[in-house]
Amino acid sequence: MPKALQPHPDRALPAGAAREVARRIHASTKDLPLLCLHGHVDIGLFATDVPFGNPAELLVVPDHYVTRMLVSQGVSPDKLGLPRRDGKQTAQEGSAQPREIWREFCANWHLFLGTPSRYWLEHEFAEVLGLTVHPSAETADELYDQISERIAKPDFRPRALLDRFNIELISTTDAATDDLAQHAKLAADLPGRVVPTFRPDAVAHVDRDGWPALITQLGALADVDTSTYDGFLQAIRQRRQAFIAAGARATDHGHLSAAAVPLTDAEAQRIYAGALKGDVTPGDAEAFAGHMLYQSAVMSAEDGLVMQLHPGVLRDHDPAIFATYGPDQGHDIPVATEFTRSLRPVLERFGHVEGFRLVLFTVDETVYSRELAPLAGVYPAVRLGAPWWFLDSPDGMRRFRELVTETAGFYNMSGFVDDTRAYLSIPARHDLARRIDAGYLADLVVQHRLDEDDALQVAKALAYDLARDTYLT
Amino acid sequence: MPKALQPHPDRALPAGAAREVARRIHASTKDLPLLCLHGHVDIGLFATDVPFGNPAELLVVPDHYVTRMLVSQGVSPDKLGLPRRDGKQTAQEGSAQPREIWREFCANWHLFLGTPSRYWLEHEFAEVLGLTVHPSAETADELYDQISERIAKPDFRPRALLDRFNIELISTTDAATDDLAQHAKLAADLPGRVVPTFRPDAVAHVDRDGWPALITQLGALADVDTSTYDGFLQAIRQRRQAFIAAGARATDHGHLSAAAVPLTDAEAQRIYAGALKGDVTPGDAEAFAGHMLYQSAVMSAEDGLVMQLHPGVLRDHDPAIFATYGPDQGHDIPVATEFTRSLRPVLERFGHVEGFRLVLFTVDETVYSRELAPLAGVYPAVRLGAPWWFLDSPDGMRRFRELVTETAGFYNMSGFVDDTRAYLSIPARHDLARRIDAGYLADLVVQHRLDEDDALQVAKALAYDLARDTYLT
Amino acid sequence: MPKALQPHPDRALPAGAAREVARRIHASTKDLPLLCLHGHVDIGLFATDVPFGNPAELLVVPDHYVTRMLVSQGVSPDKLGLPRRDGKQTAQEGSAQPREIWREFCANWHLFLGTPSRYWLEHEFAEVLGLTVHPSAETADELYDQISERIAKPDFRPRALLDRFNIELISTTDAATDDLAQHAKLAADLPGRVVPTFRPDAVAHVDRDGWPALITQLGALADVDTSTYDGFLQAIRQRRQAFIAAGARATDHGHLSAAAVPLTDAEAQRIYAGALKGDVTPGDAEAFAGHMLYQSAVMSAEDGLVMQLHPGVLRDHDPAIFATYGPDQGHDIPVATEFTRSLRPVLERFGHVEGFRLVLFTVDETVYSRELAPLAGVYPAVRLGAPWWFLDSPDGMRRFRELVTETAGFYNMSGFVDDTRAYLSIPARHDLARRIDAGYLADLVVQHRLDEDDALQVAKALAYDLARDTYLT
Repeated sequence: MPKALQPHPDRALPAGAAREVARRIHASTKDLPLLCLHGHVDIGLFATDVPFGNPAELLVVPDHYVTRMLVSQGVSPDKLGLPRRDGKQTAQEGSAQPREIWREFCANWHLFLGTPSRYWLEHEFAEVLGLTVHPSAETADELYDQISERIAKPDFRPRALLDRFNIELISTTDAATDDLAQHAKLAADLPGRVVPTFRPDAVAHVDRDGWPALITQLGALADVDTSTYDGFLQAIRQRRQAFIAAGARATDHGHLSAAAVPLTDAEAQRIYAGALKGDVTPGDAEAFAGHMLYQSAVMSAEDGLVMQLHPGVLRDHDPAIFATYGPDQGHDIPVATEFTRSLRPVLERFGHVEGFRLVLFTVDETVYSRELAPLAGVYPAVRLGAPWWFLDSPDGMRRFRELVTETAGFYNMSGFVDDTRAYLSIPARHDLARRIDAGYLADLVVQHRLDEDDALQVAKALAYDLARDTYLT
Repeated sequence: MPKALQPHPDRALPAGAAREVARRIHASTKDLPLLCLHGHVDIGLFATDVPFGNPAELLVVPDHYVTRMLVSQGVSPDKLGLPRRDGKQTAQEGSAQPREIWREFCANWHLFLGTPSRYWLEHEFAEVLGLTVHPSAETADELYDQISERIAKPDFRPRALLDRFNIELISTTDAATDDLAQHAKLAADLPGRVVPTFRPDAVAHVDRDGWPALITQLGALADVDTSTYDGFLQAIRQRRQAFIAAGARATDHGHLSAAAVPLTDAEAQRIYAGALKGDVTPGDAEAFAGHMLYQSAVMSAEDGLVMQLHPGVLRDHDPAIFATYGPDQGHDIPVATEFTRSLRPVLERFGHVEGFRLVLFTVDETVYSRELAPLAGVYPAVRLGAPWWFLDSPDGMRRFRELVTETAGFYNMSGFVDDTRAYLSIPARHDLARRIDAGYLADLVVQHRLDEDDALQVAKALAYDLARDTYLT
Repeated sequence: MPKALQPHPDRALPAGAAREVARRIHASTKDLPLLCLHGHVDIGLFATDVPFGNPAELLVVPDHYVTRMLVSQGVSPDKLGLPRRDGKQTAQEGSAQPREIWREFCANWHLFLGTPSRYWLEHEFAEVLGLTVHPSAETADELYDQISERIAKPDFRPRALLDRFNIELISTTDAATDDLAQHAKLAADLPGRVVPTFRPDAVAHVDRDGWPALITQLGALADVDTSTYDGFLQAIRQRRQAFIAAGARATDHGHLSAAAVPLTDAEAQRIYAGALKGDVTPGDAEAFAGHMLYQSAVMSAEDGLVMQLHPGVLRDHDPAIFATYGPDQGHDIPVATEFTRSLRPVLERFGHVEGFRLVLFTVDETVYSRELAPLAGVYPAVRLGAPWWFLDSPDGMRRFRELVTETAGFYNMSGFVDDTRAYLSIPARHDLARRIDAGYLADLVVQHRLDEDDALQVAKALAYDLARDTYLT
């Protein structure tokens, strides 16, 4: 008999003495609206509002948490239907049909035991899709059919789910060169629910393939001559204004290093001019990226966009995977990351400046108590983002609280933000975060380190108020 | 109605199965005398024994844990009455009156939820000052008056509190150039209760402002010609003897790096001579500081002063704050710190030398299990100091135990030492440490990893015996 | 009255709500056979099968966990009978008699409170040796006599203990230049129970004393001319084949750094030729070691030996101890270690190659969540070894699970392997690991993060199946 799928009402809450208190805290936050101001859901979903394709395309192929685990156990990316960059079908074409991909996933469901993907997926299966048995080789086809039927219904369209998911506001992530046309369409249809986020990474990394063409595109969009460095900065300022007009609240920066060190104008101009001609050293490119991080702080201090930084990931660790399947295929691996010295130029200039806000993320936990909490605990500009990526997990979130709260308190946090392309996982992610916080706070309560009335206030702040305060005030 | 302030008798003890055991352990240590051999209380407090000024001056202004948190949420240093270096009053002069500062603090009391400052202050408020309600905007004035009344009474004078706090011995921190006059006065009035600690940081950092003048002062005090490097070393040896005569047990070294690498005499002489003329590179200054750390070990091996090292803090991260308000204003931020290679020169020479003792502190937790515990677990000279600064907190202390005990055991620890300028917080700090240790040990007991009779012995060692053994034998 | 020694049946299991579940999980794994595929037990033990000498020689002298702790509290290595390299007796000759060494150990038994050595030894004392009281100054002689009597019996011979310990397969660690004669003898007597592991560290580090002579020896054994770099590689390949013929399943590499960066052939040849003449720089030696790590991956991809890497330990931190007593005397201290960039050359070439398997160990916990779990969670080649050395401890093992599982799941682990020279401690080490895993899984169960039926499957995998899968398939 297939194993019944029935997420426990107390899942991810502490056992023992703190359980009751944790239940009360979770009960007080579980129905708060969701603020999703750091997400990566494709704007096309909302703009077109067409039904989702099929279970594999909805739940497996685009979720690199899921595919990387399957790959780690020897399932080939082709068998999971990861699209090849050259568009060519693979030798195993037949096996990459959606139903086959889904079967592969179901047969390997045990691999996800103990991982947050499992928690999120169980939540989605049971509470969003109404499934009642666990995936397995035996149940794969039945589940495929059930999900297919479910997602074909009108109440399962992306926009309809916004309400069902209780999403108050969601942001997408958009390149500096995005024309925001889809956002414009959406703003007309559904005002104030979906806003863009300004992500200038591609234009800040001058040694990436195709950068000069991108800069031409940027200039055209901004109607500014980007053949000079000054024009480049002006174009970026322009684009930021366009994003702000479309409702953007924040920028987002994914750099290898947190270094935000300004160059002289002459140096910046020299590197920029060289790069336009395709003539740039790796060292210069890195220096320019750090310079642009600093410039982003300058611009945020001017225009008020919240600056989000998540550094420290070496992208595309396996170049063959990158060459064949492109970026974001689970082969990004963290490296040790430094913040104290790296952010000093920004913080000595803007750390105490009203209206400048810098939200810091990391996948290097060693900086939580050593650097991030001490920085957030003194600079008014700094808030700490939610545990990110690999650390957006029950134990990861718990460690984050334990490692930062004692130095930075609760009110220097950004509040929970999800960070996902997987639209269906959003309620599960917020719910899991609220459960972990409920458990952390309940443990403090039963250890008489926090009164329950204070814990309830803090829980609301972490789940909702602080995200509003950080991004929307 | 204002919220009642009533610290729970079981606060910071584990809930559940370990609670009863933890209570018994804590009961066995809570009345042990306090050994405070790493503190930074101003010697003037004891020397003059005048009453404390007012609640703001007593509890807010000088406590950088408190002011940094308020600053992090946008309260300006001026509004908190932080004295400006130039002595000029600020524009908001009126708002920096003590009662206004106190109101600011009370209105922001929620910021401290989950931080050790909150635990310490609740303890001080309830058990030292006899307050019965929590700070808040509403209760601020009433509390201000109650505290003012309390601290005006004779039994609240600094010396009287030594007995009330059950402090057996307390050390202050004193520059190499301190003339120890206040210690001499105090030794006459109150023999054997307050001793100095030798802190030569200022004379070891040759590139700091005013270093040449300091060296002249050092020479005058020691009656040694410090125009040469050899005279400099001789003057330091002299001052150490004067400190020892005044009862000092230890030295204290706060360097950016733990590097303790000797230079050749010729190199040291060259840098020293240059620095006296104000001619020194940052690299040379750093090398000289590392050299002086090594020389301090040489001297400790000679004269028996316990050598305390707490490296890894980048001081004055924001130069504008430093320029306006001076050092120690909460803007010191940790950096990654290395011990294994850095201390090798000292340990290969003195690590097995009887009579040499090196107590290591860190604000970089990553070295606990990787470097510090392995070093302390083999070198007789090395003991691990208590969790320091940002890590002197419930979860911080717990992590320290979990990360070092399994490799270094309990008997390579220095025992608990507080590290504070905030005199009133001393009993609270020792009590919190004893509670956390009671909980840690109780958890081991209920998991049958330690017998309760052993746990009681260990608890006493951690609370008292080891500090005595480390500093006083 | 001496304190009774009676390890609790629930030792190292969680207290409270999870206890019952943990008991059931531990009951399901405690009798599984032991796979000991990473150990360092002396092959001579099994080859000669003579009785153990005396309690000091069995339990104290060769166990650097034990001697380092005693040394850390001022017991001299001579007093512990550590053999001096020059073979000369020490001044304290009399005190280094076995019974005196044993007394020293017993009198210091309290030093081990809270350490894994204490758990292992209590287990060995009670369950292997049948002792009934704790070591102490008073009980030392009685225990000495009881153990001496016990180990003289035939059922206590090394081979007999293989059965009693339920060891299915054990590997030793053998230099590339070992002639495997003892393994050959043993294979005849006791087929398939004891296999070698190929450890080429000595031949890969060209700047170590005596390296040229070793290379001559390597060539002689392999019957290959090792005067050229190509001959050197060929000789290593030959020796690997000899090890495989003797049953070897794996190689083992202890390097200071995890860097596995290939040199050009010309560079490798140049360094090799120089080193043979004793002419090599430290930088070249380090580069060559990293090159050989890469070459080992090349060879493992060819011949299927599992590649085990445990980097990051600075050997012989105190050169005087090394000069007097030799290596492995507890003076090896970890340093920060990087994996993401260091292993990239190997993983981009072999990370997705079927049949290549790389098991990673570390004593730097900071890489668990940041680097190791992300690598293991995507590369099919990578598995994570059990917590190693200082981290093979109750809290150390628990942290490992908490820090890697959420990203890498359970099935990218190598399964538990012990890593010890202390033969008698093997059952204790496996049992402790199974208890800690039972507790970790039970906590997940009672927090409704894992179903109990899944927990039982995972527990078996961690205790047995995964080690079999990693090393024996």
